[in-house]
Amino acid sequence: MNLIILNESDDIGGGRYRLVDHRAEHIRSVLNASVGETVEIGLLNGPAGVARIEEVTSEGVVLICGPLEKVADPTPAIDLVCALPRPQTLKRLLATAAMMDVRRLHLVRANRVEKSYFQSPLLMPENYTPYLIEGLSQGKLTRLPEVAIHNRFRVFFEDTLPAQVAAAAEENATPPIRLLPDPESTRGLDRLFDRDTNSWVLLAVGPEGGWVPFEIQLMEAVGFQRFTLGRFVLRVEHAVTAALAQLELLRTAERER
Amino acid sequence: MNLIILNESDDIGGGRYRLVDHRAEHIRSVLNASVGETVEIGLLNGPAGVARIEEVTSEGVVLICGPLEKVADPTPAIDLVCALPRPQTLKRLLATAAMMDVRRLHLVRANRVEKSYFQSPLLMPENYTPYLIEGLSQGKLTRLPEVAIHNRFRVFFEDTLPAQVAAAAEENATPPIRLLPDPESTRGLDRLFDRDTNSWVLLAVGPEGGWVPFEIQLMEAVGFQRFTLGRFVLRVEHAVTAALAQLELLRTAERER
Repeated sequence: MNLIILNESDDIGGGRYRLVDHRAEHIRSVLNASVGETVEIGLLNGPAGVARIEEVTSEGVVLICGPLEKVADPTPAIDLVCALPRPQTLKRLLATAAMMDVRRLHLVRANRVEKSYFQSPLLMPENYTPYLIEGLSQGKLTRLPEVAIHNRFRVFFEDTLPAQVAAAAEENATPPIRLLPDPESTRGLDRLFDRDTNSWVLLAVGPEGGWVPFEIQLMEAVGFQRFTLGRFVLRVEHAVTAALAQLELLRTAERER
Repeated sequence: MNLIILNESDDIGGGRYRLVDHRAEHIRSVLNASVGETVEIGLLNGPAGVARIEEVTSEGVVLICGPLEKVADPTPAIDLVCALPRPQTLKRLLATAAMMDVRRLHLVRANRVEKSYFQSPLLMPENYTPYLIEGLSQGKLTRLPEVAIHNRFRVFFEDTLPAQVAAAAEENATPPIRLLPDPESTRGLDRLFDRDTNSWVLLAVGPEGGWVPFEIQLMEAVGFQRFTLGRFVLRVEHAVTAALAQLELLRTAERER
């Protein structure tokens, strides 16, 4: 827990927050912090900084927030599209997405997604949000990724996503770069991503076993470009980490060596 | 399970292998494969290819290996040095290392490593090997990474590792590139890794909470160069995935755009 995430329900007024759950336990037992010491905190969807410990009892911990600063918006903004994985994998995917500053996570139906996954209780916000917060806490971020669940593959790629792209275009004009990692491709990400653009990124990661050809054709028809993450055959959460790490390298790489 | 890994103890002679464990169950229940069909297999530390199913019973599955081909050696070879993580994290790290074709995994003591981790039963080969094989199976690889455990930080970096580097130099001459991801650095990996070298790579990933300054100084003194994986604050297994994905991008990137 690199950042303790505070939310409205912890707020007891006057800049004070009362924690009674595993965060209090973390402050007491892992950080071994006492009254007067400071801990790193972030307000959910808000600024981050430090808080001073005002009270530590067996029931809980009271913090008073010190100076807080806005957490920078990610550049580029990344919206992640994933074929809905099985619940155990989804938990790790949620944490990874939040840890790596994904803005929006679209979980979509695909041919190789088991229908039963859409019945999982984990798809309810009260059940998946703790995994997102765990990721924010690890990544020292505060902005909760939006999660959207799409039960129809074609409708998502042909209607929902184009409508979002059009809405974004009305606000800032630059269309997104649409990226599709595909082990069959030989093109590296450096051929598709130019750090000098202001484009946001749509990254579509397939299910275990991959997208079927029909799905790839449909995604290419709506502007997704295939590229290779390299020689690796990766699990979903590793593919997400690998793609975001490669984007990050290209974003910051020196132009001349 | 993208590749079913076979080992000597499965061998019943004549190119036949008898499986009675979760691999047999995978062939029966996940692949739904019947007699006469083929499955992708790899021999542990050997070639990979296909095998034909000769028998399926409730007790097990008999495979007869078809044409097999040598699995390419990774270029560059990557030896991963990790501060020994807690057992739950180590399981994921083992699978990740094997999945991403790490040649050797050094698990070392560090200031922020709890001593009790070195008592974990998971450090015995019979307990950790299944996680490596799970990773090979996912990554469609067959070469088992070597695992070495080093209980003394300074001895490892000042004696053990230099001896390995010297031994390698006697065989092929090129010294390794020694890489140290560090959130404090502003230098990207593109400044350190040149795909035109034949160097192997030593990548040192710290514990949760990071290396302490003394450790970083000592590693720098023996030739490790700090770089940033980007703005992310990552868990160990994510840092490993991110670093290997960035190396892979640099290895394959076009020189001119």
